[in-house]
Amino acid sequence: MPAGSTPADVAGQISPRLAKAALAAVVDGKLVDLTFPIQKDASVQIVTSDNPDALALVRHSTAHLMAAAVTNLFPGAQCGIGPAIDEGFFYDFVVDRPFVPEDLDAIEKKMKELAAQDLPYQRQMWPRADAIRFFSERGEPLKVQLIEEKTKGEAEVSCYTIKDRDLFVDFCVGPHVPSTGRLKAFKLLNTSNAYWKGDAKNQPMQRIYGTAFLSDADLKGHLQRIEEAKKRDHRKLGRELGLFWFHPWAPGEPFWLPKGTTLVHLLGNYMRSILYPAGYVEVRAPLVFNKALWETSGHWQHYRENMFLIESPGEEEKSGLKPMNCPGHMLLFGSEMRSYRDLPLRIHEQSVLHRMEASGVLSGLTRVREFIMDDAHIFLREDQIGEEVERLLRLVGRVYDDFGLTPEMKLSTRPAEFLGEIATWNHAEAELKKALEAVKVPFAINEGDGAFYGPKIDFAVTDALGRKWQCATIQLDYQLPQQFELKYIGADNKEHPPVVIHRAIFGSFERFIALLLEHYAGALPLWIAPVQAIVLPIADRHLDYARSVRERLSAAGLRVELDERQEKIGYKIREAQLQKIPYMLVVGDKEVAEGSVAVRARTGGDQGSRPLNDFVRDVVAEAQTKSATEPRQTAIA
Amino acid sequence: MPAGSTPADVAGQISPRLAKAALAAVVDGKLVDLTFPIQKDASVQIVTSDNPDALALVRHSTAHLMAAAVTNLFPGAQCGIGPAIDEGFFYDFVVDRPFVPEDLDAIEKKMKELAAQDLPYQRQMWPRADAIRFFSERGEPLKVQLIEEKTKGEAEVSCYTIKDRDLFVDFCVGPHVPSTGRLKAFKLLNTSNAYWKGDAKNQPMQRIYGTAFLSDADLKGHLQRIEEAKKRDHRKLGRELGLFWFHPWAPGEPFWLPKGTTLVHLLGNYMRSILYPAGYVEVRAPLVFNKALWETSGHWQHYRENMFLIESPGEEEKSGLKPMNCPGHMLLFGSEMRSYRDLPLRIHEQSVLHRMEASGVLSGLTRVREFIMDDAHIFLREDQIGEEVERLLRLVGRVYDDFGLTPEMKLSTRPAEFLGEIATWNHAEAELKKALEAVKVPFAINEGDGAFYGPKIDFAVTDALGRKWQCATIQLDYQLPQQFELKYIGADNKEHPPVVIHRAIFGSFERFIALLLEHYAGALPLWIAPVQAIVLPIADRHLDYARSVRERLSAAGLRVELDERQEKIGYKIREAQLQKIPYMLVVGDKEVAEGSVAVRARTGGDQGSRPLNDFVRDVVAEAQTKSATEPRQTAIA
Repeated sequence: MPAGSTPADVAGQISPRLAKAALAAVVDGKLVDLTFPIQKDASVQIVTSDNPDALALVRHSTAHLMAAAVTNLFPGAQCGIGPAIDEGFFYDFVVDRPFVPEDLDAIEKKMKELAAQDLPYQRQMWPRADAIRFFSERGEPLKVQLIEEKTKGEAEVSCYTIKDRDLFVDFCVGPHVPSTGRLKAFKLLNTSNAYWKGDAKNQPMQRIYGTAFLSDADLKGHLQRIEEAKKRDHRKLGRELGLFWFHPWAPGEPFWLPKGTTLVHLLGNYMRSILYPAGYVEVRAPLVFNKALWETSGHWQHYRENMFLIESPGEEEKSGLKPMNCPGHMLLFGSEMRSYRDLPLRIHEQSVLHRMEASGVLSGLTRVREFIMDDAHIFLREDQIGEEVERLLRLVGRVYDDFGLTPEMKLSTRPAEFLGEIATWNHAEAELKKALEAVKVPFAINEGDGAFYGPKIDFAVTDALGRKWQCATIQLDYQLPQQFELKYIGADNKEHPPVVIHRAIFGSFERFIALLLEHYAGALPLWIAPVQAIVLPIADRHLDYARSVRERLSAAGLRVELDERQEKIGYKIREAQLQKIPYMLVVGDKEVAEGSVAVRARTGGDQGSRPLNDFVRDVVAEAQTKSATEPRQTAIA
Repeated sequence: MPAGSTPADVAGQISPRLAKAALAAVVDGKLVDLTFPIQKDASVQIVTSDNPDALALVRHSTAHLMAAAVTNLFPGAQCGIGPAIDEGFFYDFVVDRPFVPEDLDAIEKKMKELAAQDLPYQRQMWPRADAIRFFSERGEPLKVQLIEEKTKGEAEVSCYTIKDRDLFVDFCVGPHVPSTGRLKAFKLLNTSNAYWKGDAKNQPMQRIYGTAFLSDADLKGHLQRIEEAKKRDHRKLGRELGLFWFHPWAPGEPFWLPKGTTLVHLLGNYMRSILYPAGYVEVRAPLVFNKALWETSGHWQHYRENMFLIESPGEEEKSGLKPMNCPGHMLLFGSEMRSYRDLPLRIHEQSVLHRMEASGVLSGLTRVREFIMDDAHIFLREDQIGEEVERLLRLVGRVYDDFGLTPEMKLSTRPAEFLGEIATWNHAEAELKKALEAVKVPFAINEGDGAFYGPKIDFAVTDALGRKWQCATIQLDYQLPQQFELKYIGADNKEHPPVVIHRAIFGSFERFIALLLEHYAGALPLWIAPVQAIVLPIADRHLDYARSVRERLSAAGLRVELDERQEKIGYKIREAQLQKIPYMLVVGDKEVAEGSVAVRARTGGDQGSRPLNDFVRDVVAEAQTKSATEPRQTAIA
């Protein structure tokens, strides 16, 4: 028992497994219900304020407090699930009308009243039949369903009350704080649409998001970060900077405007410039494949409801838009006889992918239906895994370094349910560990969190506001090549199945662009800024010179605009600043006479007049170094 | 009556309208039945061997001769249609088993017998009811359907016999040669699947293609060109050069292999390098749109059966993969308030398009289901049409010049059925003519062949074998902007609808690549060759130097490969020649010692050893001039 904790803090248990599940949820960009699975055998742990579990505990208890307030203010409200999440907590409800902002105020006020009363949280073990009858009579079929699903064969089920079951009771294994008085720093934030169990085919629900901290100072800091995040919201920046747009007739499919198209191309071509010298080849596979492909890959059986299916007049067979590139690349590998000398074969593709997300969960560039990935599949021999993964780790490190980002790595190992031999898994995991150790950066291990087909390494980036974004991934796969009966001829002149690595470095372009926009608050580093400089003539008599400046920059390979409008120079400068253009080049009489430009940097303001040639030389050099606006760290050795 | 023709040559009529229809059919890449529409009012014309109509006449008559042979050899055969086409003729049949090559031999033999008998072709006007009864009793429901559709309200219908109706009779307005003895130079070529009226929902048929000429020498020349065309067949070259591949699970969707992907990127980036300085912006619109878009554009009503429709689980509304970019660009124009000062607004897009072609008509890269276009829509004011079209004509000319191709132009004017005011059409047609005259190249006029929404200019290219390929198109459209209720604010401060120009310069990338491959027989000009040079070390001891040569070329921006295999140098050279790589750089002891390369050009053979730096300098310069392998002509002033 650590010093400073008292028996009063022993409020239940939260296992390391659950704490990790919370982290994994964030990394995957999805929210996981911390109440599942029920960990009956987890040992009781001490929760203290210097324990990272404490925050999850407080948030989960605050979710209960919110549910108590909602069920009191909205009689007949049904409760769904209410876990702690990375940034706070949520709870899903069925109520008879949409929540409005005033509701959140009233709910929060009620929560504060209940907190002031310092009411106890108590764990009660109820006979299962009693619990089912109780929730059933109270009109909570969703809770009944949960109990029935999660406690099959159990005699008793764990419930938590606040004060008593008349005020609030939930089916929950806890743990919770001892009493509501412990909850002093919380705030309700917003509502969103949700579905029971996250499935759009199920009961629609309303989710209330809130957050809670151990101190008022922490809460205040967090709320300030939220305000800053709103300013950096990529959806807002996307509109203001003319990057992308959405139309209701194409939900979840970004409409890339000219500057956004430039950004997509810059990222795509940058990736090619990295991958081609690293031995990758690029292909463009079809977007629509017959269901025979998806049956072979298993997508038809396991992923069909996430696919855009085609009903083609005149075609008997069904087909589907590809949600992933892997099956196409399997066909490609199988299209020729391959020798061990041809391996590793690294196939890169930047085609458009489609996944059917429920319209309720679509959000800007982070939850889309149409996207591109910097996808690749590397076909290799088992003895090549270690070296290839080490190369890949260095490649990922180099790419993130170029964008001024530092990834954290996590190795996920053999899960309880897996395919293949344990010896193969052990070999693969050992090779991945050796590669991770070779690049000399710390990494976490998620025991048992690999995919059923192989271990994987995931990368997360922390942005300027401290938020984690899942980006790159490296996944070993022993199964898919076998489903496609792929073979190569080994040095022994016999056939062997290749191993495949699925890997993406950006992840999706869309998500990566959202990350860049929010991380840099729209002020993209010079080398990927869609417009790198803008020429601002003071008066019409400077137009000819301004055009020659534009030509000079353009000829040097820079992306440059010219503001020819008859507006005041102050107005033009302000607009260019709002567009976050790295360099504004004001030209007036002095500059025309001198052959110079008056440089204003997006950062650092007025730099005075400089000879045009000097400016071009320096900016070209700056763009080549790819130096980010913010300090860069070299993370991977 | 021209000198040299005799009354015996007056065999019927073929109008200039029909002759043009035959040309148009080829230009559109589709085959048109020359017997429709029935031109009752066409005046009788003299057909002579120096008249371009003569070839069409002979071919159409040979199609009848073939049908006579087929119906005699295959009792019960049903006849469809049998027009003359650009390269010969075809006729579609329903027979009870697939034609095999021996059938073609037998049919051709029978045709020769009938030709030797010099049997007369005769036009007979039959009472309509008699004709319907006759074909009905003979078991030709398709002919009955044709007669019923094409001769509504007529008393008599035109039929043509060979000898008499017991040998052969067809519903046809002619004209035909006087007798089978005039048909001396014909050859049956191949069969293909077809559908009644070209619609996959209709009766499946078998098409026999043949060709006919006025002399044996012409026929022989044509058959030689066919042999040469087989060698240049882009499907064969695509496989041999590792450019693309098709898989049966994605019919009509090219699978671009690494070198083909490079070629697609080269064309795309080249097009950007042309279009950006010409004031175009590029966008990436969604690929899938809700049916509400297609209803607004009219595709849902008129084009749905050519679309890939999406059935999305969980989505109420239907949607479709875009077959064209225009509707998306209409939304884009409408996304902001536009001023007359913003026009012309030139929106370019290279997204993937999908059109549902019947599987029977798919062929290599020329008939595909998935393709990209160098598409653009130019929104402009009516007073800008002339200047913009002139700019466009120069742009098209420049692009084709860069590829060593010379386009022919054709202006199509107001059709019988049109939307809008005649004055508007007259203005637009006058502007197009003025623009065509300004660029000082001859052009043809297709009176009445414009689209219902506006006049257009089509471009066709004649390849090295004399075959015509439809490529670029410039189409004025007054209607679509109105369907989307698009407006701009004019200088008069009032709202006006913009005009839109649909235009493509390559047309589809796929088709353009097929054209380039067949025109150049796979030996693509240096600047678009996916691999520009290959380094061929003679022995392993030259590998280090060979690698440094590759690095030097690669650093100079050239696309270079290195053949590291332990094969004899002769073998490596032969393989590189088959790959049609422009430069082979052999390196051995002498080259290592001198810092040189022994250059072998794809054309011109061994050029001897040259200092590496000189070679790089010259090849970079050659690639920059975009000089084609074959002589270039500057067609447009």
